[in-house]
Amino acid sequence: MKLIYVLGAAGSIGEQTLDVISQDQDLFQLVGISLSSDRIKNKSILDRFKVEICCLRTGDDLAFYEQTYPNVRFVSGDSGLIEVASYPKKGILVNALSGSSGLIPTMKAIESGKDIALANKETLVMAGDLVTQAVRKYGVKLLPVDSEHSALWQVLKDEKIDDVKKIIITASGGSFRHLTRAELQNVTLQDALKHPNWSMGAKITIDSATMMNKGLEVIEAHHLFGFPYHNIETILHDESVVHGLVAFKDGTMKASLSVSDMRIPIAYALYYPNRFTYSKHLELTHMSFKPMDFNRFPLLKIAYEVGIQGGLLPTVMNAANEAAVKLFLSGDISFLEIETIIIQSIQNYKNILHPTLEDIILTDRWIQKEITDRYRKR
Amino acid sequence: MKLIYVLGAAGSIGEQTLDVISQDQDLFQLVGISLSSDRIKNKSILDRFKVEICCLRTGDDLAFYEQTYPNVRFVSGDSGLIEVASYPKKGILVNALSGSSGLIPTMKAIESGKDIALANKETLVMAGDLVTQAVRKYGVKLLPVDSEHSALWQVLKDEKIDDVKKIIITASGGSFRHLTRAELQNVTLQDALKHPNWSMGAKITIDSATMMNKGLEVIEAHHLFGFPYHNIETILHDESVVHGLVAFKDGTMKASLSVSDMRIPIAYALYYPNRFTYSKHLELTHMSFKPMDFNRFPLLKIAYEVGIQGGLLPTVMNAANEAAVKLFLSGDISFLEIETIIIQSIQNYKNILHPTLEDIILTDRWIQKEITDRYRKR
Repeated sequence: MKLIYVLGAAGSIGEQTLDVISQDQDLFQLVGISLSSDRIKNKSILDRFKVEICCLRTGDDLAFYEQTYPNVRFVSGDSGLIEVASYPKKGILVNALSGSSGLIPTMKAIESGKDIALANKETLVMAGDLVTQAVRKYGVKLLPVDSEHSALWQVLKDEKIDDVKKIIITASGGSFRHLTRAELQNVTLQDALKHPNWSMGAKITIDSATMMNKGLEVIEAHHLFGFPYHNIETILHDESVVHGLVAFKDGTMKASLSVSDMRIPIAYALYYPNRFTYSKHLELTHMSFKPMDFNRFPLLKIAYEVGIQGGLLPTVMNAANEAAVKLFLSGDISFLEIETIIIQSIQNYKNILHPTLEDIILTDRWIQKEITDRYRKR
Repeated sequence: MKLIYVLGAAGSIGEQTLDVISQDQDLFQLVGISLSSDRIKNKSILDRFKVEICCLRTGDDLAFYEQTYPNVRFVSGDSGLIEVASYPKKGILVNALSGSSGLIPTMKAIESGKDIALANKETLVMAGDLVTQAVRKYGVKLLPVDSEHSALWQVLKDEKIDDVKKIIITASGGSFRHLTRAELQNVTLQDALKHPNWSMGAKITIDSATMMNKGLEVIEAHHLFGFPYHNIETILHDESVVHGLVAFKDGTMKASLSVSDMRIPIAYALYYPNRFTYSKHLELTHMSFKPMDFNRFPLLKIAYEVGIQGGLLPTVMNAANEAAVKLFLSGDISFLEIETIIIQSIQNYKNILHPTLEDIILTDRWIQKEITDRYRKR
């Protein structure tokens, strides 16, 4: 029996995680979750799973939930997330929170001896060094859930690191991949949210369109697998069939392929080292690859530079991106302003090389607040 | 230091094996070889490598070679091949012989405790059960050298067999892949020898055009990896970039990719479990896949049927193919008659289910002789 915690259980990855868990109730037991502010969704989850602890977005509805589900311990807000993450039963914590809010719960879960199935890449972008140190110190596993990192993990797990020449992450290019930079001037939020291959949350869909997502993934891959940035390549691949490739020094490559269904990497992490049985199989048809275009997608270039410099800069980039995407989603800025805001934030920032967790959290909050205050129209 | 024997050293795979060996003389020592009837080629090989034993095609030139290379022990013909294969120093024997002549030397090398790097797929087609039994009995390794099987081996080596749903072998389709069956009526030998992706020996190039090669590979894969035939698929893949794929029950696939250079699978087998360093790396561009067309390529369908039935039938198919390809190469029959001859041979044959090695060898000789006598015009 594997005990499972899911932070962000009502989000896109969270719901797919619950779907995987519910299909194998002999193996998985859901112990703790965090939910959204959508009462109907929350109720449906609480009705399906008998959890022990549940974190609500705010304390407003606490009485209602406590009355309806008397056997569940309800907590709320940021402190509630920490309570779920620190819950005294070991197991796997699936971190499917969106953005920087995932960092502290990840650290707390590690410190309480839980393995981390990480869908929240921002955690590693902001504090990759601290997180991987903590993973080693507490002897827990860090299991990638991102489809690209799951693919790389599957290929790398039985290989000698010295035999690897480079790892290659594929990028679909997102909603606007076939538009020129000039054409990006007039794109709408609605169009930005139409990802060609994946059905995902709003933030990651926008991040895919700006190629920031691939930048975050490059930094995530650096921390997960320990390769220097010059051995981490990205490549454009329209079809999202090949998710990751490893090139070996002997001229061979291994690739991991699957249909675009997040339940596959989720299940790979939860079942590891075993494999689950899945009915949807890939039909091989056509795959195209094009070199990454760093002029078309400047944020990816920025992410490499920021990753190489390290320190607080990745946190600054991540915070600026998070704030800018929110502003774009609320209609306050245009699509191309996302890039401008991120680039300016990095240029204006004097880096600190070995930040503490507190430095990281404070910088994240400060940058996000500063950008939001400046650009929010209302 | 790894001691190496190369049977068929003057052929296409043989020469590429010597190329790999010569680049790492601290690791590899060439002990024994078999050569061709081309004296210039033979001399060039004997000048470059200080071998202990060398098998010549015939005894005609023995005096010349013994005088020129007094430190080498020369043997000749079929018995000479057995002497090289049975040479009392253990090591890796690369079997790069063409066709059925590879079988007995493989068995002798196994019995003398040598690991086998197998480029001669006919060995496993004819006597897969006996060879794999002998491999287990004598505790030696059977290392695939065919590019497709090397690819599958690389992917399968660290996986649990129970997790595998199927293995997939790619087929370029050979010289006539874009011709209809009607257009095959008038193709020439010269055109048949132009393989679009690989530079190989004559027999395998013709086998690629008839898709018999893929049929032999399916049977080879069955014996190498132990999967039933219904879990071994073939797929058309024009670019010869992906050589083999493994589909797992969880919906993921792993693929092995490389440029079309036989030195890569050769080196993979010789260096195993390490990897060598190679300068030529794959650029990912475009890959297409199409379902196999068994009506267009009936010999592949035949190979599956013959493989499933087992016994002596694979030997009959292999012998008929070998004789028919020779007749096509000598201009005695047309391209499409290769198929007719093979299909007729199988239809006329009453199968024997558990043949001995002697049954296999005699059947091979008898079928080849019978077909050659019937169709040879001169």
